[in-house]
Amino acid sequence: MDQTMQEAYDLDRQYVLHSWSVQGKLSPKVISKGEGIYFWDGEGNRYADFASQLVNLNLGHNHPKVVEAIKKQADDMCFIGPQFVAPSRSRLAKKIIDLLPDSFGKCFFTVGGADANENAMKIARACTGKQKIITRYRSYHGATYGAISLTGDPRRPPVEPGVPGIVRVFDPYCYRCSFGLTYPECGLRCAESVREVIMYENPDTVAAVFFESVTGSNGIFVPPAGYMERIEAICRELGILLVCDEVMTGFGRTGTMFGFQNFDITPDIVTMAKGVNSGYIPLGVVAVSSKLAKYFDENMLYCGLTYSGHPIACAAALGNLEAMEEDKLVDNSSAMGALFKAELEKLAKKHAYIGDVRGIGLFTCLEMVKDRESREPLTPWNGPAGPMAHVSKALLDNGIAAYIRWNYIFLTPPIIINETELMDAVARIDAALTQAEPAIAQEVP
Amino acid sequence: MDQTMQEAYDLDRQYVLHSWSVQGKLSPKVISKGEGIYFWDGEGNRYADFASQLVNLNLGHNHPKVVEAIKKQADDMCFIGPQFVAPSRSRLAKKIIDLLPDSFGKCFFTVGGADANENAMKIARACTGKQKIITRYRSYHGATYGAISLTGDPRRPPVEPGVPGIVRVFDPYCYRCSFGLTYPECGLRCAESVREVIMYENPDTVAAVFFESVTGSNGIFVPPAGYMERIEAICRELGILLVCDEVMTGFGRTGTMFGFQNFDITPDIVTMAKGVNSGYIPLGVVAVSSKLAKYFDENMLYCGLTYSGHPIACAAALGNLEAMEEDKLVDNSSAMGALFKAELEKLAKKHAYIGDVRGIGLFTCLEMVKDRESREPLTPWNGPAGPMAHVSKALLDNGIAAYIRWNYIFLTPPIIINETELMDAVARIDAALTQAEPAIAQEVP
Ligand SMILES: Cc1ncc(COP(=O)(O)O)c(C=O)c1O
Ligand SMILES: Cc1ncc(COP(=O)(O)O)c(C=O)c1O
Repeated sequence: MDQTMQEAYDLDRQYVLHSWSVQGKLSPKVISKGEGIYFWDGEGNRYADFASQLVNLNLGHNHPKVVEAIKKQADDMCFIGPQFVAPSRSRLAKKIIDLLPDSFGKCFFTVGGADANENAMKIARACTGKQKIITRYRSYHGATYGAISLTGDPRRPPVEPGVPGIVRVFDPYCYRCSFGLTYPECGLRCAESVREVIMYENPDTVAAVFFESVTGSNGIFVPPAGYMERIEAICRELGILLVCDEVMTGFGRTGTMFGFQNFDITPDIVTMAKGVNSGYIPLGVVAVSSKLAKYFDENMLYCGLTYSGHPIACAAALGNLEAMEEDKLVDNSSAMGALFKAELEKLAKKHAYIGDVRGIGLFTCLEMVKDRESREPLTPWNGPAGPMAHVSKALLDNGIAAYIRWNYIFLTPPIIINETELMDAVARIDAALTQAEPAIAQEVP
Repeated sequence: MDQTMQEAYDLDRQYVLHSWSVQGKLSPKVISKGEGIYFWDGEGNRYADFASQLVNLNLGHNHPKVVEAIKKQADDMCFIGPQFVAPSRSRLAKKIIDLLPDSFGKCFFTVGGADANENAMKIARACTGKQKIITRYRSYHGATYGAISLTGDPRRPPVEPGVPGIVRVFDPYCYRCSFGLTYPECGLRCAESVREVIMYENPDTVAAVFFESVTGSNGIFVPPAGYMERIEAICRELGILLVCDEVMTGFGRTGTMFGFQNFDITPDIVTMAKGVNSGYIPLGVVAVSSKLAKYFDENMLYCGLTYSGHPIACAAALGNLEAMEEDKLVDNSSAMGALFKAELEKLAKKHAYIGDVRGIGLFTCLEMVKDRESREPLTPWNGPAGPMAHVSKALLDNGIAAYIRWNYIFLTPPIIINETELMDAVARIDAALTQAEPAIAQEVP
């Protein structure tokens, strides 16, 4: 590493606390450069960014259109408080409402995904006068106290007690059904179960059902046909709001603009962040129906943050959306996603440790197992890395940066990816699995 | 207004939900331009920004050094996930630790002030294994669920239930002492009362005392001499951590780099945001002592956000700190603050509705009363604007944008302000009060 990179590394190790980590076990890579779907580490190694950092870099590294938008707004005006009108914020609000169903009316801007979800929860509670929120066990909604309370993921319990009033239900995780059933014979038991729980809780106490439209960091569970529609019907029947967390699935990730658009549903509230401006500047959004927005014409909105709807973040989002339109990136995500899934299914024929291939658009995941029959995970849920460490290493060795968690390999490249880049990555993933297999075999009896 | 500004206004009114507001009652100003301590509205009127927007714009509008830092980092690399080493983040972490007492060791970066406080609370709880946090009634720590739970301010109750485990105590608000006493005869009863509460709660269940070093948005209460030292002594005696929320008071606001440096204390955790980069890009920081940091060498840090320590935000903070050093802005805040307070005290001799003048550095507040003897507030705590509406209007008419809340006029200009600008503003504040007085007199018997 050159001196600047070495210095950055040394200062980081001495002075920076990293998220979700035992600090003593870390040796984080320095990133020296990024361009398109690639980034380079301090040693000059190139990686295809198949994690899109934290699944936020939908437009890849340093997209010129977004960089220009940031620089222009920085020259014009860096900060305007949320109590004022900021032109970039106004224009973005309209743009986002235009992307949503006609029933949507207004946006409340936030700083990231967690606070978007928290504010959605506050809005749902305020408008309904009810407290409880239904969420899923295998969900992640962010790390602030309210958002981590919504979350089901094992990162929640260590910071409890959180906010009361959250009721958790089972997921549409067909590969490991919580009900021991098989789709479609199950009759969507997981959706019916949501109704059953709401009845026990009493619908008069439930403000909202709060779901990721496609579960993200807990394993990419694409809901089976009919599931989301059934959830929406239950909400309508029982007078409960439907909130879709689109923080990870929004802005082309799943091959549609928003994840919920893969289904025939209309949520009441949609939360966004990450892809809204590829994370180039922190931003989150809570979009609400006109009906909900109207409530605040005469009632106080008890929500607020200093950086709410930051003008540079909004300008970056406008640049991001413009680039998405011009380059038809939603269509590209859909087309590349279909190709990728077909290729991954071919890899699954060849590599026996791949238990399941799932995904939609460029939101894909390989679930690794010791054995296809037993489906025993290659490494246990919430356990140590075990044999998956060989997979992580082999992918990096082959120039693929993917997010690996338990026995899942998340493959979520920037949606700007082209066929050449994608096929090159497929070959590298193939090579990495081949490389890892002997080491895995030594540990898996 | 020209067409662009009118369009921005119309789109805002149609599509944007504003913080802490009944939307139907708003007619927010469009901001078209900002430079130094001034900004201009859509009609071309100039205002001296005596609120520094939300007390974040310490360097004023569009400081060239910070703008350049943002543009350079945007060209270099817009986003690097928190799992990697980002050179601007490494350098900023060192810089911040260098500004703090020697006992400080590491920084955890966040997106804003609220999540800085939430993470400080998580860290305090994790390191001590204890749950309760002591905060004050007249405090504001942010709006996410954990931060609003820490808060005492009336914006909290409407979004309860929040996170359990918060115990609230009374403030060092000498002008309206909760104990009905007078300093110094009181013997710092408000500090002793903190000890009494901790004893009833049992020190073995209390993780931290969590205070703004100088209370901000609830009225700028500069603690009387000896108060903070007594609080620190109580913490040390009882084995409890001391957390200082420096989100508003940090980075020169009070005439020292951090507000706590006005006292002879050393906190265990310091939280920051706003002034760290003047809010040009969203950023927050939790700085912790080496002792606390060490805990996470072997224990998982259950904290994380996508935009944690955003590289552009860190680069902006480095530019901000460089400008502060070069232009000796902390000294300027101290000098201008002393001049300002002396001038405000002169105004108080002339304007009978001024009940109290208080502040430290450029963190000042006028408390308005109906009558100096009775100290009856000109408008009630948490009530409607009443006669204070005349004050707000007169200040704006005279080109002063100040934050007004209940019977408080907060006067917190950018710390780059020079004497000419300051004296011009004093004359305008004087004129505004003179203008408002007849209308107030009509309403106040
Ligand atoms: C579905 C979902 N919601 C919310 C969040 C939280 O977003 P942030 O980290 O910006 O607070 C995430 C982050 O991964 C997410 O995946
Ligand atoms: C003392 C203090 N702490 C925390 C916050 C919250 O900061 P943010 O709005 O960036 O979340 C504020 C905001 O005004 C504050 O004044």
